[in-house]
Amino acid sequence: MDEKRLARVRENLQSLGLEQALIVDPLSIWWLCGYYTEPYERFLALLVRAEGAPTLFANRLFPDASGCGARVVSFSDTDDPVALVAAQTARDRPLGVDKDLAARWLVPLMESRAASGFVLASGAVDDARSIKDAREQELMRAASATNDRAMAWLVDQVRPGVTERQIADGLLAEYRRLGASDHSFAPIVSFADHAADPHHEPDDTPFAPGDMVLFDVGCKQDWYCSDMTRTFFTANPTGHQRAVYDAVLRANEAAEKIVRPGMTFAEIDRAARSVIEEAGWGAAFTHRLGHQIGLVDHEPGDVSETHNEPVRPGQCFSIEPGIYLPGDMGVRIEDLVIVTEDGCEVLNRYPKGLTVL
Amino acid sequence: MDEKRLARVRENLQSLGLEQALIVDPLSIWWLCGYYTEPYERFLALLVRAEGAPTLFANRLFPDASGCGARVVSFSDTDDPVALVAAQTARDRPLGVDKDLAARWLVPLMESRAASGFVLASGAVDDARSIKDAREQELMRAASATNDRAMAWLVDQVRPGVTERQIADGLLAEYRRLGASDHSFAPIVSFADHAADPHHEPDDTPFAPGDMVLFDVGCKQDWYCSDMTRTFFTANPTGHQRAVYDAVLRANEAAEKIVRPGMTFAEIDRAARSVIEEAGWGAAFTHRLGHQIGLVDHEPGDVSETHNEPVRPGQCFSIEPGIYLPGDMGVRIEDLVIVTEDGCEVLNRYPKGLTVL
Repeated sequence: MDEKRLARVRENLQSLGLEQALIVDPLSIWWLCGYYTEPYERFLALLVRAEGAPTLFANRLFPDASGCGARVVSFSDTDDPVALVAAQTARDRPLGVDKDLAARWLVPLMESRAASGFVLASGAVDDARSIKDAREQELMRAASATNDRAMAWLVDQVRPGVTERQIADGLLAEYRRLGASDHSFAPIVSFADHAADPHHEPDDTPFAPGDMVLFDVGCKQDWYCSDMTRTFFTANPTGHQRAVYDAVLRANEAAEKIVRPGMTFAEIDRAARSVIEEAGWGAAFTHRLGHQIGLVDHEPGDVSETHNEPVRPGQCFSIEPGIYLPGDMGVRIEDLVIVTEDGCEVLNRYPKGLTVL
Repeated sequence: MDEKRLARVRENLQSLGLEQALIVDPLSIWWLCGYYTEPYERFLALLVRAEGAPTLFANRLFPDASGCGARVVSFSDTDDPVALVAAQTARDRPLGVDKDLAARWLVPLMESRAASGFVLASGAVDDARSIKDAREQELMRAASATNDRAMAWLVDQVRPGVTERQIADGLLAEYRRLGASDHSFAPIVSFADHAADPHHEPDDTPFAPGDMVLFDVGCKQDWYCSDMTRTFFTANPTGHQRAVYDAVLRANEAAEKIVRPGMTFAEIDRAARSVIEEAGWGAAFTHRLGHQIGLVDHEPGDVSETHNEPVRPGQCFSIEPGIYLPGDMGVRIEDLVIVTEDGCEVLNRYPKGLTVL
């Protein structure tokens, strides 16, 4: 059990007026007590109370949880885990529940009157997970360093006739060679105007010399995620193309320059968006500037115009402005940053200046 | 909108005493109205009522849903989808909810008093999805035919020094070459006594001549899943090895022989389990005999000792007995079957007699 992390979660629960909460996100459970399993349709939960060791409810089919620092309640497929939880909750008090708790468990918990009320309380854990400690920052750096190296490999794959899908399918083996365990999300490889769709799925389109090429990729390494986008030219850019690229790059740099504790997420989004608006492509920057990242690639609390909380040291998020011109072209340039005491550390070192491959 | 499927869901809801239900499983939504998107943390739901076209609630960031036959309510990230649902439900009636509905939506729905009560109602859809119509049966056959061909490819990969992970990592490209789109689950490749762990994850262990080899793999093709296991020898089996293999094969065949409408899932499990018990390895068959399968590899309603419902024509499930002897060996032989009017059709044709590669 990581007592420091547990203490932060308890503080957050207290500020929500809660003395008990049921956490079901397997990664939140891992983050707190070092025990991980993917329960699929089976029940896995950590009951955190204001005092005492949390209780882990785990099916006997899961890997052994002893030694994780929680009290462990084991059960089999023929037991009713809801009754086991209800036997441990304070029924006269509200119970915080994870936003991911599925109705298959929440409805029976309510029917069994396991608590006096049920309140969404994931924010207490999400907020704590949002602030990366020194060890986590080291792992975020390492995952992004691997991603930088993978980008060099990706660039090497660009040759006439290779398809988007072929490059995307080969990336996992390269990540593993570099020490990562998996993708952090399905890789985006976009040739030519496919880059105008920010969520393009790699298909069988072959690369033709002169096409622009966008890579948006990330790996998981030692539990932590990376995520980076680069856009390349393969012929000398036209003036229009150069202007679009330049606007995105300046937006990326403007946002990274302004990040510091106390600045709000919305102000950081604004710093990038203003650059693109002033260049005349505001309507073509169709998404938020970024998202927090850590144990999963998209963590709660985005970098958007409506998120008015201040950023805090240890938070890690993406800065990924883009301009999308359907039928024409698309450019996105994305780095991860960690907020420091007086600014931010940019985790990606892969060059982002205009490059013709 | 598939009106026949919708009618079956409505019938099932009626027998639960429900006039309205909120379906959120994206594959159930696809199965009913042909619209598919993976919503991740955003809201996607189909509200089915006793009469009239269902209503699809879809974020504007999702692909266009018009033409799916549902009335479509679109919203943006700054709208409150819960309020939009609550505006359409009968507040004085109970609302059936999908087992997958996350607390992030269910708690606010309850707080907004969108219905007089909230009842788990996924069974109404799961039961309807369990019975495959003629078109679905054709797709299940085709996915398993691809899986048969992939098994031949897998066998060809077995050579000294190749690792479990190398074979597993190469399978996706072969599936795609054969017309499938993806794995239906992470492939299991187990050398030697790794097969004694039924959920072994492929690792960097190299193949050594003489090792037994187990492949448990499946693909998705045109939305439907396949799933098959074969276990091979690469040296002449000892008498002990031969006896274990023979017991598993006879268990597989005994179960496939007994399947017919009216027989319960538990009786089918029993038919296989008895063979293994009589051979003296009952304690080493550590899991249920099988699981239903369709749009996902594990669908509700397993083939187990505690599932006493009768099987019905059109249901599709796995028959996968195994014997697991840690430190020694493991054998599993798995086919998919579809229940017919008077027996079952075995979808996998890849030979399962004892084979020395």
